[in-house]
Amino acid sequence: MLDVEFAVQKLWEFLREDAYPEDLTSRIVRGVKAEGILLAKSEGVLAGLRFVVPFLTRLGFTVQANLNDSERFSKGQEIAVIRGDGELLLSVERTVLNLLMRLSGIASATREMVEKAKAVNPNVRITGTRKTTPGLRAFEKYAIEVGGGDPHRFGLYDAVLIKDNHIALLGSVREAVMRARKVASFTKIIEVEVSDLKSALEAVEAGAHAILLDNVSPKEAKEVIEEVRRVNGRVIVEVSGGITPDNVVDYALAGPDVISSGYLTHSVRAKDMSLEVKPINVC
Amino acid sequence: MLDVEFAVQKLWEFLREDAYPEDLTSRIVRGVKAEGILLAKSEGVLAGLRFVVPFLTRLGFTVQANLNDSERFSKGQEIAVIRGDGELLLSVERTVLNLLMRLSGIASATREMVEKAKAVNPNVRITGTRKTTPGLRAFEKYAIEVGGGDPHRFGLYDAVLIKDNHIALLGSVREAVMRARKVASFTKIIEVEVSDLKSALEAVEAGAHAILLDNVSPKEAKEVIEEVRRVNGRVIVEVSGGITPDNVVDYALAGPDVISSGYLTHSVRAKDMSLEVKPINVC
Amino acid sequence: MLDVEFAVQKLWEFLREDAYPEDLTSRIVRGVKAEGILLAKSEGVLAGLRFVVPFLTRLGFTVQANLNDSERFSKGQEIAVIRGDGELLLSVERTVLNLLMRLSGIASATREMVEKAKAVNPNVRITGTRKTTPGLRAFEKYAIEVGGGDPHRFGLYDAVLIKDNHIALLGSVREAVMRARKVASFTKIIEVEVSDLKSALEAVEAGAHAILLDNVSPKEAKEVIEEVRRVNGRVIVEVSGGITPDNVVDYALAGPDVISSGYLTHSVRAKDMSLEVKPINVC
Amino acid sequence: MLDVEFAVQKLWEFLREDAYPEDLTSRIVRGVKAEGILLAKSEGVLAGLRFVVPFLTRLGFTVQANLNDSERFSKGQEIAVIRGDGELLLSVERTVLNLLMRLSGIASATREMVEKAKAVNPNVRITGTRKTTPGLRAFEKYAIEVGGGDPHRFGLYDAVLIKDNHIALLGSVREAVMRARKVASFTKIIEVEVSDLKSALEAVEAGAHAILLDNVSPKEAKEVIEEVRRVNGRVIVEVSGGITPDNVVDYALAGPDVISSGYLTHSVRAKDMSLEVKPINVC
Amino acid sequence: MLDVEFAVQKLWEFLREDAYPEDLTSRIVRGVKAEGILLAKSEGVLAGLRFVVPFLTRLGFTVQANLNDSERFSKGQEIAVIRGDGELLLSVERTVLNLLMRLSGIASATREMVEKAKAVNPNVRITGTRKTTPGLRAFEKYAIEVGGGDPHRFGLYDAVLIKDNHIALLGSVREAVMRARKVASFTKIIEVEVSDLKSALEAVEAGAHAILLDNVSPKEAKEVIEEVRRVNGRVIVEVSGGITPDNVVDYALAGPDVISSGYLTHSVRAKDMSLEVKPINVC
Amino acid sequence: MLDVEFAVQKLWEFLREDAYPEDLTSRIVRGVKAEGILLAKSEGVLAGLRFVVPFLTRLGFTVQANLNDSERFSKGQEIAVIRGDGELLLSVERTVLNLLMRLSGIASATREMVEKAKAVNPNVRITGTRKTTPGLRAFEKYAIEVGGGDPHRFGLYDAVLIKDNHIALLGSVREAVMRARKVASFTKIIEVEVSDLKSALEAVEAGAHAILLDNVSPKEAKEVIEEVRRVNGRVIVEVSGGITPDNVVDYALAGPDVISSGYLTHSVRAKDMSLEVKPINVC
Repeated sequence: MLDVEFAVQKLWEFLREDAYPEDLTSRIVRGVKAEGILLAKSEGVLAGLRFVVPFLTRLGFTVQANLNDSERFSKGQEIAVIRGDGELLLSVERTVLNLLMRLSGIASATREMVEKAKAVNPNVRITGTRKTTPGLRAFEKYAIEVGGGDPHRFGLYDAVLIKDNHIALLGSVREAVMRARKVASFTKIIEVEVSDLKSALEAVEAGAHAILLDNVSPKEAKEVIEEVRRVNGRVIVEVSGGITPDNVVDYALAGPDVISSGYLTHSVRAKDMSLEVKPINVC
Repeated sequence: MLDVEFAVQKLWEFLREDAYPEDLTSRIVRGVKAEGILLAKSEGVLAGLRFVVPFLTRLGFTVQANLNDSERFSKGQEIAVIRGDGELLLSVERTVLNLLMRLSGIASATREMVEKAKAVNPNVRITGTRKTTPGLRAFEKYAIEVGGGDPHRFGLYDAVLIKDNHIALLGSVREAVMRARKVASFTKIIEVEVSDLKSALEAVEAGAHAILLDNVSPKEAKEVIEEVRRVNGRVIVEVSGGITPDNVVDYALAGPDVISSGYLTHSVRAKDMSLEVKPINVC
Repeated sequence: MLDVEFAVQKLWEFLREDAYPEDLTSRIVRGVKAEGILLAKSEGVLAGLRFVVPFLTRLGFTVQANLNDSERFSKGQEIAVIRGDGELLLSVERTVLNLLMRLSGIASATREMVEKAKAVNPNVRITGTRKTTPGLRAFEKYAIEVGGGDPHRFGLYDAVLIKDNHIALLGSVREAVMRARKVASFTKIIEVEVSDLKSALEAVEAGAHAILLDNVSPKEAKEVIEEVRRVNGRVIVEVSGGITPDNVVDYALAGPDVISSGYLTHSVRAKDMSLEVKPINVC
Repeated sequence: MLDVEFAVQKLWEFLREDAYPEDLTSRIVRGVKAEGILLAKSEGVLAGLRFVVPFLTRLGFTVQANLNDSERFSKGQEIAVIRGDGELLLSVERTVLNLLMRLSGIASATREMVEKAKAVNPNVRITGTRKTTPGLRAFEKYAIEVGGGDPHRFGLYDAVLIKDNHIALLGSVREAVMRARKVASFTKIIEVEVSDLKSALEAVEAGAHAILLDNVSPKEAKEVIEEVRRVNGRVIVEVSGGITPDNVVDYALAGPDVISSGYLTHSVRAKDMSLEVKPINVC
Repeated sequence: MLDVEFAVQKLWEFLREDAYPEDLTSRIVRGVKAEGILLAKSEGVLAGLRFVVPFLTRLGFTVQANLNDSERFSKGQEIAVIRGDGELLLSVERTVLNLLMRLSGIASATREMVEKAKAVNPNVRITGTRKTTPGLRAFEKYAIEVGGGDPHRFGLYDAVLIKDNHIALLGSVREAVMRARKVASFTKIIEVEVSDLKSALEAVEAGAHAILLDNVSPKEAKEVIEEVRRVNGRVIVEVSGGITPDNVVDYALAGPDVISSGYLTHSVRAKDMSLEVKPINVC
Repeated sequence: MLDVEFAVQKLWEFLREDAYPEDLTSRIVRGVKAEGILLAKSEGVLAGLRFVVPFLTRLGFTVQANLNDSERFSKGQEIAVIRGDGELLLSVERTVLNLLMRLSGIASATREMVEKAKAVNPNVRITGTRKTTPGLRAFEKYAIEVGGGDPHRFGLYDAVLIKDNHIALLGSVREAVMRARKVASFTKIIEVEVSDLKSALEAVEAGAHAILLDNVSPKEAKEVIEEVRRVNGRVIVEVSGGITPDNVVDYALAGPDVISSGYLTHSVRAKDMSLEVKPINVC
């Protein structure tokens, strides 16, 4: 509920970025009432409408949403109908489309990876990373959840993840985990990024709650996962590194608890949508 | 010069998004001095370092940049070397990489389209659109310029572009252009989006400075461009609609002044980079 | 429509400037309902009520506006009637009056210049400059439009205007225009400030879309305008430099397309208004 | 000292208003070093340089100030010399001039009124009002002080001033003063606006510390002042209402402690200044 | 009235501090409607509900307040009943309680001191100081007023208070007061902090409106107060320094006009309250 | 490192709250150089100087710190010496003292509880709660860490804590935990607040990582802790509810992993400090 407030405030900032201090062109339709059909131009999973509807409503529009976030849309489907002041509608059109298209792109790719991975490993979780677009973190994490994924850390402040660079500065996995256990609150899990079995076991022995296997082949992943499980059945194992819808099945078959993918946010394609507007008499 | 200040302030906001209120993990390297190598993991065109260097410098780092924005980097090239406080370096790593990777992705794709198009039509301009990531408009427009493109409108406030939806609300191209000429400042150009010759000519006759041919085939584009040129040699003609590096040559051969591409910002892939960190004694 | 949102947010900031963190005096009328008559104390053209009405409405007042922006008011005319909480009304009174008085001052002076100039040169446009009050740019540009003027550039970001200082740093008008054509988007016009015929022609030949003749007499202006027109009939010619309602006719007779005046924003007198308040039973 | 920080932050906002997100034109002088002479184009009293110098210094400029705020400048005098990056200098030029011109206009008018009034009434104070430009209150109050005036209330939060509208809602001067004495902190003075002797005496008897005589002739003012003084020698008497440099002497002769003038901020003319720029080799 | 707007905006910031970017736990009750009883867990004076009610209302809750600020509550009393979305209610619970508990703690302690002091010295005022919690000044001053106290200065901007450190830098009380009379507006009172009779008399002679007797015993206070009164009956005398509910009567008996206490804001205990929530069918 | 930047920015806001728009009194010492001794007026543990030093340094002061945060100070000890502009020093004095006094109060109370608890239960952690002062969360959590405590959750966004009100809305502990496991990221721990053994065991069986025993006596706590440990040795047990330095030993003896205390932030007394200022010739 609350994130809606956060999102609406952000949508305002995005609108200002586009329409600061005003829209020169749309003045030509001042006084005209309009109806806009939000149209999908390809199939996918919807994300972002949860925020767009209250944003438009507060601007005075009447919005009829035919779908909710996380539902699939098909090519040509009318996702929503928006009625109200024509000048304002044309001013907000691009801001709204830019957000919906990007978030739906992320949700669609996440859903694809989730379905492919769960088909072979029903308990695996697909997660995003912190490789998000600067300024859009909360939205993109939301889109991953809408797609059925796990958002992973929102930021550096909410869980401990010891990465290769931390270890490089401290000299050993053990030293890094020990320090983390000392400075971290009891409310935080400690995860360690490793790329081989030896480091994985060192992390587990030092008390890590989770292991992030980065940049290993599916075969290597399988070997490490099995050995870690043998040593400590409660440790969570995550794999990452260049995983996309194309190779996610191979990694899912390796048996991890979690598969994380930067692709979902840094290189995904937007889902094309458009707004088809016509004049109306009343709204 | 000024945009650097704007960008540095934005980088602060992006860092806050990731590290609010602080980085739980990097505390484990408190007091360690570090050197980080910014490494390219594929080839491309660099964009964003112009803002990252002063950002890091103000945070107390020493930065040695081996490349400038708009220069090409090859896979494995050391783009920059950063020295300073290790804890802080690991805290800013992801924010910096996220920006550089995305902007370099845009600049690289733009450069590719510019080179392909100019090879067959030396005077054509490649431009972005307003289909940018919410909140990143100024950065993404910058990356397009770095790639050799034209930024087109920054927002709804700096030029008049009458789109299909404006025309739909007013009933005719002529009416729309007439209204725009009345309300727009003499300092603004008036461009009109059309998809056929008839509308294009109507816009030109009504006094438009530029025509945006949207969603036409290269063949249709060629016919409209030639006829518009015949009627009025000063009108600028832009083509758009699903143009990517794969089909840009076909459109360039149609002879437009400008080719615009939403792909450059809404669906481009980031260029992979990493930061390789090691401890040092002094910085 | 959108600018109303922008303006209302700014009005909040202006109110905070006056009433931070609260109004010590108006507490003495807590609980009293009031009606306030917004009264003109001289004649003029109204500007700003478009923003003041929604601002007051959101604060819970009922507002009955007897005039719209751009309409004339006479001395003693009741511009609007405001009803609601007396304490709050007295707290916002000065903020609202300060804005209305200043904007109406600008709109009135603009209207005067527009009417005088068009009487002798029906196609001429009167425009403001960037010599606006710091922080009030968008409001003052709006007041100029309300007065019948052209707002000219909103800021350095929306059109190219090469001024004497740019030319001084580059050595020649030609060099400056050439550089601008290279770095500016195709969506921007290029205007050049000059003060003699030779420079004007150099700018036109280099490809400038508009010429700003600064600090010339009406007689000199006439000569340059005629010669520029002879060479290139499409170039827009603007004159500026110390132009006020007192001498605008002389410049209008010289035949420019545009007359710009810094006086309209940096030295105009406010239009006096007051709020006459009385207690009421219900609102 | 502190207000400098406040002012520099505001100057940043003013610059953003003009140069958001960047200056399209000044890019043509990228890389050129420049020297700018800040030149007075009429005589007056300087105000604002105290804030402009640190603002420019932090932007990387070297500034040599030949005058301090509150000193007089003559027509053609070189107020300051600024050296540094040419592109940035042209980007900040207008923001700096707009502030200096307006504040110096206010300081100059204040100085004129102070000198005229004190020539006939050496102990009188000239003060501003809250009729300031929205958003510029602190700057304009500063300019009044620089001109030798008293800033009066900064806002509704720092002293009690019971105006005609407060009295209209409460029914009597006595009631208003009594309520104010009850709710106001002991740290605040209570001033009451009146326009006749009867109300003035009622306010004094109720315990007001100061009387604001509004919209009375100099002759009426004199009579009320003398009678109030006779009744209570400690009460401060202020006069206001249409007082400008033209009639200030008449009011000063009436013997008030304070003369306040809205003209100083709502209708004063800016002092013309310019920046003359030339290229240099080093800065 | 106005301060409500200020406070609601602040409450938003406080909520963001706790729930940024969202509440992970309360998602588990998504869709559940709830009723929450705001319960007092000890007796005291209520403060803060004036702001909490509109804050909750704008979030969509229905609030039934059984008490107003400044009224006493007893242990176990139901202060208010809140109905609405359960997820959101649990997200705002702590923010609302944190504010109400702290402000009610301050109001209760103030009321205790006011009642004790007035029992022996009916005209004395109890005031707070500037020793408030950073960021909460306006709220804490409000709580003092609600408790029956005088807020004293809100900040360094609204009255002159010459403290020991000012005098230490200038060498004498006389010099300090003389300078203050010169630079301060006529709308400001001048108060001087002293700790002995000699300095008190020096301040009075130099023209101070008020004396702050700091860190003296009740006996010393009495002597100074009587002597100052003898010399000048209009000067306000304030005492301060380690005054709490435990010793306030001793100081009140010394006869000051004002007693100020930093304890009220820097060391007061919060009043315990809780929110008891249950599911409901409709709200 | 980063939190210093965050804190310095906040200190600016706190200063603005006190000195907006400027300090009326300290102008009387304009031009005087000063040295200020930061003096402890009771013993305690220092917290906050880590942020105050860079804040003062950026304002131009030279600061010599004799102690670091987390070190003990004795009554009368000179904590730091600050040299620089006298006017500015007196303007920032109260802001700096307010922060240091409050944070040191929290750190001192935390240290006391930590030492008492660890004397009887060496592995127990003392933690704060979310009952912090609105707007000061990050500072108060920091002070708890400086005192040797564990900060617990920073906000609702970084760990799952199912409280009594969540359970009240869902009907059962099991249902609440099950839902949390479904919606929470794998990176978050799930803690459940209970007040009896039955609920504790239900939570453990449902998969909670931690149990918060709220409002139980030390004896009850002991019984639940032992039984929970018997069932599942890995579950973390936290106790809370009215725990202060006076009763912390009793609870520590019950054997919990964690003791949390709202007292540390909602009702702690500030540690008294002062700044003793004198004039100097150079700084």
